[in-house]
Amino acid sequence: MADDTIMSNKNESFYRNRRVLITGGLGFIGSNLAIRLANNGADVLLVDSLEPEYGGNLFNIASVRDRVQVNISDVRDASSMKYLVQGREVIFNLAGQVSHIDSMRDPYTDLEINCRSQLSILEACRHHNPDVKVVFASTRQIYGKPDHLPVSEQHLVRPIDVNGINKAAGEYYHLVYNNVFGVRSCALRLTNVYGPRQLIKHNRQGFIGWFIRLAVEDGTIQIYGNGSQRRDFVYVDDVVEALLLAGATDSCNGEVFNVGGHGPVSLADLAELLVEVAGTGAVRYIDWPEERRAIDVGDFYSDSRKFEQAVGWHGDVDLRTGLDRTVRFYREHLNHYLDGDTVS
Amino acid sequence: MADDTIMSNKNESFYRNRRVLITGGLGFIGSNLAIRLANNGADVLLVDSLEPEYGGNLFNIASVRDRVQVNISDVRDASSMKYLVQGREVIFNLAGQVSHIDSMRDPYTDLEINCRSQLSILEACRHHNPDVKVVFASTRQIYGKPDHLPVSEQHLVRPIDVNGINKAAGEYYHLVYNNVFGVRSCALRLTNVYGPRQLIKHNRQGFIGWFIRLAVEDGTIQIYGNGSQRRDFVYVDDVVEALLLAGATDSCNGEVFNVGGHGPVSLADLAELLVEVAGTGAVRYIDWPEERRAIDVGDFYSDSRKFEQAVGWHGDVDLRTGLDRTVRFYREHLNHYLDGDTVS
Repeated sequence: MADDTIMSNKNESFYRNRRVLITGGLGFIGSNLAIRLANNGADVLLVDSLEPEYGGNLFNIASVRDRVQVNISDVRDASSMKYLVQGREVIFNLAGQVSHIDSMRDPYTDLEINCRSQLSILEACRHHNPDVKVVFASTRQIYGKPDHLPVSEQHLVRPIDVNGINKAAGEYYHLVYNNVFGVRSCALRLTNVYGPRQLIKHNRQGFIGWFIRLAVEDGTIQIYGNGSQRRDFVYVDDVVEALLLAGATDSCNGEVFNVGGHGPVSLADLAELLVEVAGTGAVRYIDWPEERRAIDVGDFYSDSRKFEQAVGWHGDVDLRTGLDRTVRFYREHLNHYLDGDTVS
Repeated sequence: MADDTIMSNKNESFYRNRRVLITGGLGFIGSNLAIRLANNGADVLLVDSLEPEYGGNLFNIASVRDRVQVNISDVRDASSMKYLVQGREVIFNLAGQVSHIDSMRDPYTDLEINCRSQLSILEACRHHNPDVKVVFASTRQIYGKPDHLPVSEQHLVRPIDVNGINKAAGEYYHLVYNNVFGVRSCALRLTNVYGPRQLIKHNRQGFIGWFIRLAVEDGTIQIYGNGSQRRDFVYVDDVVEALLLAGATDSCNGEVFNVGGHGPVSLADLAELLVEVAGTGAVRYIDWPEERRAIDVGDFYSDSRKFEQAVGWHGDVDLRTGLDRTVRFYREHLNHYLDGDTVS
């Protein structure tokens, strides 16, 4: 725990009074990051479109609402972004379309948000704020179905859906703008992130938020197949710490890093643990829907050692603790995370 | 040579009367492919925008003009593409913005052509011609600066310019549409291609066409640095053969293949050989311009064994022979390849 104190202290002094921009700042990870930064005394500007089907939710930042600036705009709006990046010292670039299912139904929207908008943001930085540091939230999805486990950054990028392709392109843009134009950037390939403030009103942004909602509402979690496929999970506070460290560490520039969980857990074990922790909910095993099976990758878990060695990060929150905190959060605030309640 | 005869015969019978669409069909590779297919008795439809700065040139297909259909339209025009793909059995998808320099000056145009348009073409196939076979012309540029040589398909994709990123995304789209939607597709990662009908009116589409023009015009070829960086070169007829084989071979579906040259040659040796073959031109060594150095990758040559093993392809035309044929072509037709003469 001594190490954590050092890390946190380093981040705290680095970010105090620092002018930070978070795209997707009202979303799941963005809002948790915003709260941490506001509590650290940073000058925080949040940009979010509040697109109803995505993750943005003003309630997410209720506890720091008077200490952050909120600017409602879409990262697809290049002229707004050109203005908003100016004067910022660190940008956490988290805005994205994150549904794999939606990306296969409407590939153009996914392209606009995850690909073209990233270019707009980087062009804005190149021309209007070239000294900024950018941390991009990439995803383990870009690896596709792994050849070997755990998956390190040396694994081929071989996306299996449109979302993965566009996220990969967005990541590559950041590296090129770092290497060619000197806009300092790095990318964190996040594995399955869970925790308070995650979108749970529909099930198209990944399974874990949906499982949590079902457990909290005493519903039935449906597992495709026998649930033997293994994944790793990382609690949102650990991801926030990872983002802060990457933003404060120039040796990360031009690099990609996996940020994963504590090792593999089967989906069946995850669901059973969740139901146990919650004390409500049930698990049922059903056949695979064809559309989901086509883009499933089987076992996947990350090797985060490159990032651990680069910045001293390690995930602190074990799965049971993280699920317990998450369930408690949603029990208290569930009404702010259901349909029709995104702008609370 | 017996093998070549078998290959050619296989292609000839496969493509006779076959309904083929070539995007970028008036460009360098597309037109050479069109001539070969027309001479094989295929039903050939060429789509090209004749965008003046790109490679399209009606003179390219002068010898088969009465045996192919030409449709002038831009692959960015999704509604035209939706119509044009219908009824085609094989699509050679070669349209692209190929200038790395231009992609860094205007990343959005590169995105529209190399990324968004590929989605449009594939969406058109998915909804209006799901039984088509698509062969996509990818590029060795997507690998970036190699970790090891020669570069196989197991090498990480790590593009170093916007063009490389968007080409990588375009390639990934083809694989996803193959794997998820059953639109049979494969991608050939072409190395430096040279030969007759290449754009030579400016130097932003790679160095080899420009070197050839300078040699033919008795100009001075400028080599950056000492010209020691090694590359591989593949003659356009060998690429045409590769495309035809890929289009006729379903075991290629869902796969990417390098299509490279006969082994590494230094740029200095290439230029000296070219001047020797041409009997005109000179070579001069100059300092690196900063903009070029930033996106140069040093030595690069491909390992094409995966493709050779998959379809029995091998490049037949050695560098001296290929350069000789190319120089002869441009000596005869130079006026059709200079400024203001793209629509001849």
